[in-house]
Amino acid sequence: MTGEVADLRAALSLLSWDQNTAMPEGAARVRGEQLATLQGLIHERWTTQRLGELLSELATPTQQAPFTDADRALVREVNRERAYATRLPRGLVEEMARVEASSFEAWRKARETNDFALFAPWLARTITLQREVADRLGFKATRYDALLDLYEPGLTSARVDALFAPVREVSVRLRQRIEASGHTVDASCLTGAFPAEQQMQLARDILTRMGYDFTRGGLSISPHPFTTDFGSPFDVRVTVHPHEDMIDDALMAALHEGGHALYEQGSAPQLARTPVVGGVSMGAHESQSRLWENEIGRSEPFWRGNLAAVRAVFPSQFANVDAATFSRALNKVSPGLIRIAADEVTYNLHIIIRYEMEQAMVNTSVAVESLPRLWNEKYQAYLGIMPPTDSEGILQDVHWSSGFGYFPTYTLGNLYGAQIYAAMRASYADFDERLASGDSAFALNWLRERMYRWGKTYLPEELVERVTGEPPSPAYFVEYLTRKFEQVYDLPAE
Amino acid sequence: MTGEVADLRAALSLLSWDQNTAMPEGAARVRGEQLATLQGLIHERWTTQRLGELLSELATPTQQAPFTDADRALVREVNRERAYATRLPRGLVEEMARVEASSFEAWRKARETNDFALFAPWLARTITLQREVADRLGFKATRYDALLDLYEPGLTSARVDALFAPVREVSVRLRQRIEASGHTVDASCLTGAFPAEQQMQLARDILTRMGYDFTRGGLSISPHPFTTDFGSPFDVRVTVHPHEDMIDDALMAALHEGGHALYEQGSAPQLARTPVVGGVSMGAHESQSRLWENEIGRSEPFWRGNLAAVRAVFPSQFANVDAATFSRALNKVSPGLIRIAADEVTYNLHIIIRYEMEQAMVNTSVAVESLPRLWNEKYQAYLGIMPPTDSEGILQDVHWSSGFGYFPTYTLGNLYGAQIYAAMRASYADFDERLASGDSAFALNWLRERMYRWGKTYLPEELVERVTGEPPSPAYFVEYLTRKFEQVYDLPAE
Repeated sequence: MTGEVADLRAALSLLSWDQNTAMPEGAARVRGEQLATLQGLIHERWTTQRLGELLSELATPTQQAPFTDADRALVREVNRERAYATRLPRGLVEEMARVEASSFEAWRKARETNDFALFAPWLARTITLQREVADRLGFKATRYDALLDLYEPGLTSARVDALFAPVREVSVRLRQRIEASGHTVDASCLTGAFPAEQQMQLARDILTRMGYDFTRGGLSISPHPFTTDFGSPFDVRVTVHPHEDMIDDALMAALHEGGHALYEQGSAPQLARTPVVGGVSMGAHESQSRLWENEIGRSEPFWRGNLAAVRAVFPSQFANVDAATFSRALNKVSPGLIRIAADEVTYNLHIIIRYEMEQAMVNTSVAVESLPRLWNEKYQAYLGIMPPTDSEGILQDVHWSSGFGYFPTYTLGNLYGAQIYAAMRASYADFDERLASGDSAFALNWLRERMYRWGKTYLPEELVERVTGEPPSPAYFVEYLTRKFEQVYDLPAE
Repeated sequence: MTGEVADLRAALSLLSWDQNTAMPEGAARVRGEQLATLQGLIHERWTTQRLGELLSELATPTQQAPFTDADRALVREVNRERAYATRLPRGLVEEMARVEASSFEAWRKARETNDFALFAPWLARTITLQREVADRLGFKATRYDALLDLYEPGLTSARVDALFAPVREVSVRLRQRIEASGHTVDASCLTGAFPAEQQMQLARDILTRMGYDFTRGGLSISPHPFTTDFGSPFDVRVTVHPHEDMIDDALMAALHEGGHALYEQGSAPQLARTPVVGGVSMGAHESQSRLWENEIGRSEPFWRGNLAAVRAVFPSQFANVDAATFSRALNKVSPGLIRIAADEVTYNLHIIIRYEMEQAMVNTSVAVESLPRLWNEKYQAYLGIMPPTDSEGILQDVHWSSGFGYFPTYTLGNLYGAQIYAAMRASYADFDERLASGDSAFALNWLRERMYRWGKTYLPEELVERVTGEPPSPAYFVEYLTRKFEQVYDLPAE
């Protein structure tokens, strides 16, 4: 039965991927029906009485004695799916799918025409539906906790607040120290004329150099970069969105989405078509996208080994740019409006704004019409800048056309990623030299062996502990960020 | 329930479309599982006892009294689906889907590497499965009749033989008359350097001029051109495959697939997500692809109205080419190896070869290994040319990776198409003048009003009779072909 569900989910993933890459706008409504039907069929399968009986039988210690860790994870994941499905009635699940399809189209048009009013009624319906989901799933402290738990099992707002506090502190402090230093970074090599076609060629080359397997994937263009899997390591696709006046946006997106894709492609093949395949949580996933994008992909050693790929596509622009200059440019700190283009120092402030707004939407009765103003006020307060349009403000991300609880996992991923990166570096005395020689296969193998191949076998906290030797902590990220930007900006010691 | 089936079918169509346009080869096996599962779920729905009871209730005259024609068609189509599903066990349907996915990949590789041996074992399995299908569905004269009926309800080999006889006769006779005349057509304007990107731009422009609605569709590249619908007129996509040394291949494919797509986009919107939406048979479908490709798309008046589109993309090549020259070039008769690039005089000989080979495969015990030789012998006999490689011979078409019975509908489509075209021309005294002014909307409206909007409401023979005033006959095609090529080749009267 789980194979059947896996195939229905694969079809569902394809319907979504297609919606983002190839589907004509005229098909939005009928696509909503298709998504709703498939989600309904999956829901039906998780809620059968027979499955409940099987799970009860498997709950006894005698039955579980011969289980492998993957077997236990299979039972755990099925129990989790069943709990979700039995608490949410089929009608609600189908309604959510329908609203999501229409909301996505409304968001796309609203962003194109800079008209939040087109999106507002759909966002309001999403808020209502998400509150109902929280009420039905149950929660201890706030409704938002119920939604968080869907993306990062066991996580609560209270825990997030505690984990995020040092991140907020170090971000603000570093920004102040950088401003106070008066030091600047020259990032002029990243802007100019970079035709989309060549950028796609570069993205393809960088993905290949990372170890992304194109015989089990593909690269396309979509309005917002993303990675899709279809329930197996055999088909994991990424998208980017090149802007012709800058090189770093699509390049870093390729490294970021490539990180997600390497994690998915790394699942042991025998996990395919089971609920244990693929990344275990959004935070664990983001740890890998950010590790490849930031810790590796913005480092000077990596570009010592890979700048040739950039020069091959844009020879005249990069003839006189060396790896140190390129890497420094990629690490320029400048508070900007767009989350996915943000530097590492301010990135988490973008997340914290969304996290706070989601809490307001779910836990309080804030009016939808007031949200653009709230968004803009927060940007002014945290990043010191005011979005000139809603398209560059509240309409920039696709996420709110589906729901809430996802955003905090980005920052959580930064914490996990820094901790895993520290453990990996500690395993190789010549880590930087290897990267600088153009080799990243050793890093991919290290991550595959310790993390990727397990899929969802271990829950995030246990997984991080198995990979790094200790439970998740914000300390590694704080240290990584501080050391890195002290160096990039040559900051005086504190 | 039919809405649920429609959504599952839409997902199935998307899985196939994706397989042809974006799917990485590593996903072939797992995609086979996905296709099999979805086909199995659809099969399950058509075979429920409850559906049988409902259909029995609806079979009474009292129940049917208030039915519209579309209601009656709905019951007819569901009965047809149910009969197919109950006669073929779920295991067989799933096996066919699995074999088809693997066979498709084998065909792709075999064609790439010109190695029929890679494809042969899969073709053998397809033959075995198709025979089993025929045995289970039942037939009067030959197994092949059972397969034919799947694509063109009611059609038998005997009827096809009778319809095809005058076609074979006129094709052979015209070829002889053209050869005897010693007259030639200069088609040199169609070859040269035509970059793929510009060809795609031209294909897009021509589709737009035909009235194809891009807000309800899209254009991609695939190894073999095709049209896909997803169970509604709101999403109907076409693909072409540009060859950079010729302009007519992808251009004519755009007109051909565009014709299929106009038929699908023309279904009345209220038929969406019902079994009555879309073209009623493969023959009816092909009548529209061929009508737009040949009767309209190779005519001089059409190019008087549209050559500007070609000049806009390839200005230097077509500065001195007029519509008469271009149209004549498009109608050059030269026996070639590739069906989809064949002229109208020899096209049906390509079909007849495949039709005869399919009959041999299904009705006799011909060895798979001998098929390439049989293919080549028939090409030598009917077209006077011997394929130098299997890639240009027996491996050229995708069709045999799924099954048999489809090919004859191409020629049937030519017959319907010529008859419908004759009726349409008769409705407009100024038909050619309108086309020459660049207008084809009047023709599209005529076809939509009389044919497209009905979807599957009327079976093919009734539909052709409603559109043209008489049942299908080969006479219109014979006359069309004769008159046209007498003119193109300035043939002496017989």
